[in-house]
Amino acid sequence: MNIREESLQKHYEWNGKIEVVSRVPVENRQDLSLAYTPGVAEPCLEIQKDVNKSYELTRRKNLVAVITDGTAVLGLGDIGPEAGMPVMEGKCVLFKEFADVDAFPLCIRSKDVDTIVNTITLLAGSFGGINLEDISAPRCFEIERRLKETCDIPVFHDDQHGTAIVVAAALLNALKVVGKKLGDARITMSGAGAAGISIAKHLINMGADPKKMLMCDINGILCEGDERMNPAQAAMAAITNAEHKTGTLADALKGADIFVGVSAPNIVTKEMIASMAENSIVFPMANPTPEIMPDLAKEAGARIVGTGRSDFPNQINNLLAFPGIFRGALDCRASCINEEMKVAASRALASLIPENELNEENIIVSALNKSVAPVVAQAVIDAAHKTGVARI
Amino acid sequence: MNIREESLQKHYEWNGKIEVVSRVPVENRQDLSLAYTPGVAEPCLEIQKDVNKSYELTRRKNLVAVITDGTAVLGLGDIGPEAGMPVMEGKCVLFKEFADVDAFPLCIRSKDVDTIVNTITLLAGSFGGINLEDISAPRCFEIERRLKETCDIPVFHDDQHGTAIVVAAALLNALKVVGKKLGDARITMSGAGAAGISIAKHLINMGADPKKMLMCDINGILCEGDERMNPAQAAMAAITNAEHKTGTLADALKGADIFVGVSAPNIVTKEMIASMAENSIVFPMANPTPEIMPDLAKEAGARIVGTGRSDFPNQINNLLAFPGIFRGALDCRASCINEEMKVAASRALASLIPENELNEENIIVSALNKSVAPVVAQAVIDAAHKTGVARI
Repeated sequence: MNIREESLQKHYEWNGKIEVVSRVPVENRQDLSLAYTPGVAEPCLEIQKDVNKSYELTRRKNLVAVITDGTAVLGLGDIGPEAGMPVMEGKCVLFKEFADVDAFPLCIRSKDVDTIVNTITLLAGSFGGINLEDISAPRCFEIERRLKETCDIPVFHDDQHGTAIVVAAALLNALKVVGKKLGDARITMSGAGAAGISIAKHLINMGADPKKMLMCDINGILCEGDERMNPAQAAMAAITNAEHKTGTLADALKGADIFVGVSAPNIVTKEMIASMAENSIVFPMANPTPEIMPDLAKEAGARIVGTGRSDFPNQINNLLAFPGIFRGALDCRASCINEEMKVAASRALASLIPENELNEENIIVSALNKSVAPVVAQAVIDAAHKTGVARI
Repeated sequence: MNIREESLQKHYEWNGKIEVVSRVPVENRQDLSLAYTPGVAEPCLEIQKDVNKSYELTRRKNLVAVITDGTAVLGLGDIGPEAGMPVMEGKCVLFKEFADVDAFPLCIRSKDVDTIVNTITLLAGSFGGINLEDISAPRCFEIERRLKETCDIPVFHDDQHGTAIVVAAALLNALKVVGKKLGDARITMSGAGAAGISIAKHLINMGADPKKMLMCDINGILCEGDERMNPAQAAMAAITNAEHKTGTLADALKGADIFVGVSAPNIVTKEMIASMAENSIVFPMANPTPEIMPDLAKEAGARIVGTGRSDFPNQINNLLAFPGIFRGALDCRASCINEEMKVAASRALASLIPENELNEENIIVSALNKSVAPVVAQAVIDAAHKTGVARI
C-alpha cells in the first residue's frame, strides 16, 4: 500500500483529524451557572464595554482560522471547497502540535474575490488570526491585501509567505557555507504564482538585489512589457530583470548563483545547472517531484541543494514557519504580520543552526523539531514590538 | 462573591471554554506524510469525486457551528457579536459534554439579514449542521427560513425550537398529572418574540388547538388587524384567538388552563393566576426572574409550576433538547430538522419520566442528566427516517 492509499484508509479511520473539546467541567448546577447562564452574562458585559476583553474572556487569544476556497489545493488545483478540507484539517493539526495554536478549518463556497473578502471580514471577531490557504493566484494577492485593510487581526497567506520565510532562512545559511552575499547574488526563480512572487519579494526585503533577479514562468523570463503577465507578475517584472532579458529558464540560469523553483517537476536539466556560477545554490522545490532531483543537480555541479522533500537533506518546509509566526502574533496580539516580522522569522530560523555546524547538507533545521516554533515566535514578538504593531 | 462575579473570574482563568485539539499523532515523517502531504491528496480527491465523502474523511460528520450576530444575547439584548461569544462558547461546551458533538462558535459582524444568510450559506460546506443562537426577532425567523432553503445541512435556531421542544415535553406530562388533554386546553402565552412564537407553533404541531390559544405581548393580546404587530406576530394572530379578544395579559389569563411565559419578570400577579381554570399549569420562564415566582403561583392556586430555574422543581431548560437533536440529525445525516423530528424529540423527552413517577413536582427530567441526549437522538433519527430526510 503506498502512502496515499494508506492516508486514505487512515482518514476513514480517524473520523476527522481535529476535535473541539471543552476546557471546563459541566457536572453540576454550579458548573452550569458559571460556564453558562446566568453567570456568563458578566463576561459578555465586560466584552461589550471593551471588545479587547474578548481576547481574555474567550478562546480568541489562541484561535486562528485556516480558510480556503479550494481553488489551489496542494498540486491538485481547483478541487472545490469541501475537497480542500482534509488539507485544512491537517494544517490545524500542525498548528496545535507545533505551537499549541488552536486552529479551525473553514471552506468558503465561492471563488469571487469580493465575496471571500466580505465573508472573512464578517467573521474576524471570532478569531485572533486568519491563515489563508490554497487560494489560487492572482486572486490570493488581492484577497490578502484587502483583508489586511478590513480586518483588525493578522491575515497571512501561508502558501505565499510561509514558504518564502523558510526559503530565505535556508538561503542565508547556504550563502554562508559558500561564502557569498545575498545582495551580490544573481537569483533565478522558476514559478511566478503565489509562492514564487512572495519568495522574490521576501528575498528583496531580506537584502537581495532585485536588479540581479530573474523570474520565469511557463512563458520564460518575466520582462517588462510582456502582455501575457498578470498584474502581480507585471509588478515583479518592473523591479526585477534590470537588463530586460528575454528567453527561457535555461537562458535565465546561465551564470546564476541561486536557483529557486516552485514550479513543475523535472524541468531543469543537468546542463542548465552546469551553466550556473561556481558554488551554486539550488532549491528545486516543486512537490513531490522537484524541478531537478538532488543527485542530478549535485552531479551537475550544484554545491548546495535543498528541496521540499523529507527524504533528502535540507528540507525546506513551511511547517518551520507558520506555527511560530502565529504563536508570536497571537502572544503579542499583533494587529498584522508585517515584513519586519517575516524577516525576523527568517533570521531566527537560520540562526537555529550554529555557524560551526553549517555545511552543505545542514542549512536548515528539521521540520519535525518542535523547539523551532518558540524561537520563531519570540523573534516575531520582538519585531512586532519594534514596529509598533504589538498590542500587548 | 455572587455567581456573576465568580463566573467573570473563572472566565479570566479559563482562557476560553473550548479548545481545538488534534486527533492524530505528528511525531515523525510517516505521521506527517499520512495526516498532511503528500498522503492527504488522496482523501481530497475522494471528496472531489463525491462531496458526501466529506462527512467520512473530515470532522464534518460531528461538527456544528454555533452562530450569532450578538443581537439578542441572553436577556442582555444587542451587545455586539464579540460580546456574545462567551455564551456561544458555553453552548459549544454543552454540545460536547452532553452529546459528544463538536461545536464551534462564530460571530458575524453584521445585523443585515441578507448578509448573515449569505455568510452562513457560504460556510455550510465546513459543517454538518448550523445552530443559530441569540439572534433577535423578527430577523431570526427570516434568517432561519432562508438558510433552510440555501443550506443542505440542518439549520436550527435553538432559542426558538429548543425551548419549544422542552416546554411541550413538560406540558405533555403536566397535562397527564392534571388529567387534561392538550387539544382541549386553553393556552395563554406571554411573549411573542422568537421563543414565544416558536413555542406556540410547536404546541399546535403537537395537537394544541390554536383557536383556544391567546398570545400576548407588551401591547396585550395579539388580535388580527392590530397594526402594531410584526409580520410573524400577525401570522400567529391570524390562527390563534378565534374569538378576536382584545385586552391585557390579565384578561387573557381568565379561565386559561395553561400559562406559558417567555417575557418579563414579575408581570403576573397572584390574582391573575387565581383567575385561571382549576388545575392550572403555569410555566413562567422569564430568566432569571420569572413572570411570577413559583411559591406565589402555587399559593394562588396553580397546580403545577415549571420555570427556567434550577432552584425550583420542573426546570424547563433547552439543554434537554439541542444536544440530542443535533446528535440525532448528525448521526442520520439529516438534510434538515423538520417538525416531525421536533415533535418526536418532545415525546421522547416526556417519556423519560415513567407514568408512575409523574407528579406535580416531577414533570421533566433533570437538565444535567447525561442519559437524555441519546434518547432524544434516537427519536430524532427515527422521525428523520420516517419523513425521508435521513441520508444514511
